[in-house]
Amino acid sequence: MSNELTELRKQMDDISLKILELLNERGNVAQQIGKLKEMQGVKRFDPVRERELLDLIASHNDGPFETSTVQHIFKQIFKASLELQKDDNRKALLV
Amino acid sequence: MSNELTELRKQMDDISLKILELLNERGNVAQQIGKLKEMQGVKRFDPVRERELLDLIASHNDGPFETSTVQHIFKQIFKASLELQKDDNRKALLV
Repeated sequence: MSNELTELRKQMDDISLKILELLNERGNVAQQIGKLKEMQGVKRFDPVRERELLDLIASHNDGPFETSTVQHIFKQIFKASLELQKDDNRKALLV
Repeated sequence: MSNELTELRKQMDDISLKILELLNERGNVAQQIGKLKEMQGVKRFDPVRERELLDLIASHNDGPFETSTVQHIFKQIFKASLELQKDDNRKALLV
């Protein structure tokens, strides 16, 4: 394998680990929001808020990924976050 | 809406935009790797490399997301990156 490819893969590893860290940081915030909503008796899933976030992504996307592509990835993140909040709730109910 | 929820949502927006920036940074590196592989006549999709990256994710995942969840999100990112490289190749062929 060429040195250049090794170097680029190293960069990719570093960026991937930073993304992983931020995903989990975001997961933590989602859990806090879930608990707050639970206390306030508000529904966890909020389509208006999700739309706002997707619009925020669209307005800040400089590429190279298409906006539809990054929005698709974020929808997966939203879904995972909602599952995380549901798990927390299930655990709370079992206590 | 409570101040606390507003504050948590602000944090979530900030983290989401950082993730977006890193996704595109990663997309740039993927494009460079794609061009390099094109020149070297190497196939873009490399299942061994993809496995390595998934293992790297697993070994660095501190939660709250399950490893299978973050790996699923990363698989979407890999897929999008591969599509990006294919688009570049298509554009290069049209020149």
